[in-house]
Amino acid sequence: MNYPNGIKKQNQKDKVIVDSKLSHKNRGMTLESDINISNEYYREIEKAYIYKKPTPIKITKVDYPSRDKAVIKEAFFTVPSTTDYNGLYKGKYIDFEAKETKSKTSFALENIHPHQINHLKNIYDNGGIAFLIVRFTSLNQTYLLPAKEFLNYIETSDKKSIPISFFQDQAYLLKDGYRPRIDYLKIVDYLIGGK
Amino acid sequence: MNYPNGIKKQNQKDKVIVDSKLSHKNRGMTLESDINISNEYYREIEKAYIYKKPTPIKITKVDYPSRDKAVIKEAFFTVPSTTDYNGLYKGKYIDFEAKETKSKTSFALENIHPHQINHLKNIYDNGGIAFLIVRFTSLNQTYLLPAKEFLNYIETSDKKSIPISFFQDQAYLLKDGYRPRIDYLKIVDYLIGGK
Repeated sequence: MNYPNGIKKQNQKDKVIVDSKLSHKNRGMTLESDINISNEYYREIEKAYIYKKPTPIKITKVDYPSRDKAVIKEAFFTVPSTTDYNGLYKGKYIDFEAKETKSKTSFALENIHPHQINHLKNIYDNGGIAFLIVRFTSLNQTYLLPAKEFLNYIETSDKKSIPISFFQDQAYLLKDGYRPRIDYLKIVDYLIGGK
Repeated sequence: MNYPNGIKKQNQKDKVIVDSKLSHKNRGMTLESDINISNEYYREIEKAYIYKKPTPIKITKVDYPSRDKAVIKEAFFTVPSTTDYNGLYKGKYIDFEAKETKSKTSFALENIHPHQINHLKNIYDNGGIAFLIVRFTSLNQTYLLPAKEFLNYIETSDKKSIPISFFQDQAYLLKDGYRPRIDYLKIVDYLIGGK
């Protein structure tokens, strides 16, 4: 079985894990910022074209102080119907949501809107590459959880959160790096290969 | 050669065109609205998962009148770095921009930001399905122009607009329908098949 560089087999279940030398240099950087910078790097080297979608808002009032300048004076955040990130890599449709949690023990499912769960399922069922990236900020650990394992958990558990042990067992730990800051496409290569 | 239902060969160059019985019933509907409704229908029948990205804005002031309610009090529209629409169809990454023009003779290239042109090129070069949908509102004609033909025009012409004759020759006329209102995936099927 082919594993991407820098990841090694963790246990008998064919799960892989990125070697985790916990780096403190990025403390204070948000996950969103880390992913955005990684995506910029992927675009620079023409490896992948993955973008964060703008925050969905409902605009209710706009002023036009001059003819070609509009200023939004009132708007509200709305519930997203899809995930935050999507794009193209190796001809594949990539789609994921990124979330941080302060908990050291579990990831609360209320962090993901039902619309988003449904969207991830649609993408997975229709041949897209779908996953979550979850950072446990207090542990300084970031995991890529494939949609398949995530949806399986949702469908078979009544719990309102996913314990860290599930991430340790079913997800891929992402190493901090310099360029890219989080090389999550290394795991996507593995997901594509394993399909 | 296989053509999707309802389209017929137009000329010797293997171009196809959707039969155009100009319908007036949708007059007043914007192209964006027509596409959004079509995409909703495609999702309903589980055919494709294509969404319009939220309008990109830069938020500069937010009020919190109560603890769980935020009101944006000042924000500005920003230049989009990508196209408006993307998603997944038949395992393929789909990406396009939709624009209306009042002109009866040409489509001004200033309607498409340089960033967006570059984005369409990246998507096309990397195996995605990329195109423009352009509506000539005064003519009540809507065309799907594949990225390949669009980029070829940009690279070989010094003109600041694309004449309607280019659309008639190189693009696909999209028929008004009921459900979906604009069946642009019928043309995408053709683009996928022809690749």
